[in-house]
Amino acid sequence: MEITQYNTDDVLARQLKLADENYRLLKTRQVRAINVMGPVGVGKTSLIVRLIERFIPCGVKVAAIAAAAVGDEDHQRFLETGARSINLTTGEDGHIDATGLNRALLALDLAGINVLFVENVPGIISPVDYPLGTGDEIVVIAATSGGGAMRKYPRIFTQTDLVVVNKIDLAAATGVKTETMSADYARINPHGRIVFADAKHGSGIDELLAALGFECDSKW
Amino acid sequence: MEITQYNTDDVLARQLKLADENYRLLKTRQVRAINVMGPVGVGKTSLIVRLIERFIPCGVKVAAIAAAAVGDEDHQRFLETGARSINLTTGEDGHIDATGLNRALLALDLAGINVLFVENVPGIISPVDYPLGTGDEIVVIAATSGGGAMRKYPRIFTQTDLVVVNKIDLAAATGVKTETMSADYARINPHGRIVFADAKHGSGIDELLAALGFECDSKW
Repeated sequence: MEITQYNTDDVLARQLKLADENYRLLKTRQVRAINVMGPVGVGKTSLIVRLIERFIPCGVKVAAIAAAAVGDEDHQRFLETGARSINLTTGEDGHIDATGLNRALLALDLAGINVLFVENVPGIISPVDYPLGTGDEIVVIAATSGGGAMRKYPRIFTQTDLVVVNKIDLAAATGVKTETMSADYARINPHGRIVFADAKHGSGIDELLAALGFECDSKW
Repeated sequence: MEITQYNTDDVLARQLKLADENYRLLKTRQVRAINVMGPVGVGKTSLIVRLIERFIPCGVKVAAIAAAAVGDEDHQRFLETGARSINLTTGEDGHIDATGLNRALLALDLAGINVLFVENVPGIISPVDYPLGTGDEIVVIAATSGGGAMRKYPRIFTQTDLVVVNKIDLAAATGVKTETMSADYARINPHGRIVFADAKHGSGIDELLAALGFECDSKW
């Protein structure tokens, strides 16, 4: 007979229990949390920075959790905006899990925070298997990468309802057609919304805020 | 007491044993196998197609294994070149493992094959944990994604000795400096080699062939 100290069912059960705890904690503190997923180098951090820059003059208090195997490059970018931030070292894990988010939430001062961005570890496969307890999820991809991800690895796109195609300023140079990406996405997720953005130059940010249901005069 | 039917040590041991079997099988058949890793949408398939196009007129016999959660888009692109190809459905796995490669090798007719490309599941974290038994490994990233991956998720770059920065034609448009990427890579892997390529327009392919030690008049 072979034994281990735990079985995988219990690991999953523990994750779901912690995700539920995270959800309740965020709800009690009236924090709207957004899990931002997507491959490496598509501009997740830049997009979050742009959103934070819009929130600040509206009086919305923002915090952001950055993940990295090593270092704190994204965390420093979040701090530069004036937002509260925590750097979550994820080591060899291909995702943030509910345990990691729970630790970050306990370490972060949530008092007065309205919106929390959780920038996940880059990837389009592993992160979707780990529920965190955030109320919202966004998948960011890049126009420069084409739409192959949606056709070949559709699950993350079917399980979230908002996809941002960033770096749209480079779509023409890469021969990527936005209509093809929209059609691919509509086939995979007929209920989903697709927003084309260029975080570097600031376009598409209003559409993204609208898709998330944010307005400057929202009640916080 | 909690029990499972297997323990993780045995899974790893089985993977290493199968990777060793794959290595011996490839060596016996005199097939040089190259594991091509990297994030989604960086042009791994395009790069392999360009290499195959160079090999064919040299009389080098090539096969390629494509991975996908669903569909066979990349597999069809390999078949169009005239190369032998197998489509490996990887489902929710974030990597090809030694079991998957073993099945593909047994399904593929290796007779007369000189070079085998194994295009891994997209990602920069999970694939590096799964030794396959291939003799060579390449990591492909895109200039359009910047060099953040190397700084934030360095492990795959330290464990392989050849990185291809593809889509270099778009480096200027994205503000990415090749010298910065070269310096970042040299810091992480002083023994590694970095090749800048543009698979779409065919540049950098000669440098990549040279880095892999291939010449048209090589003895096969």
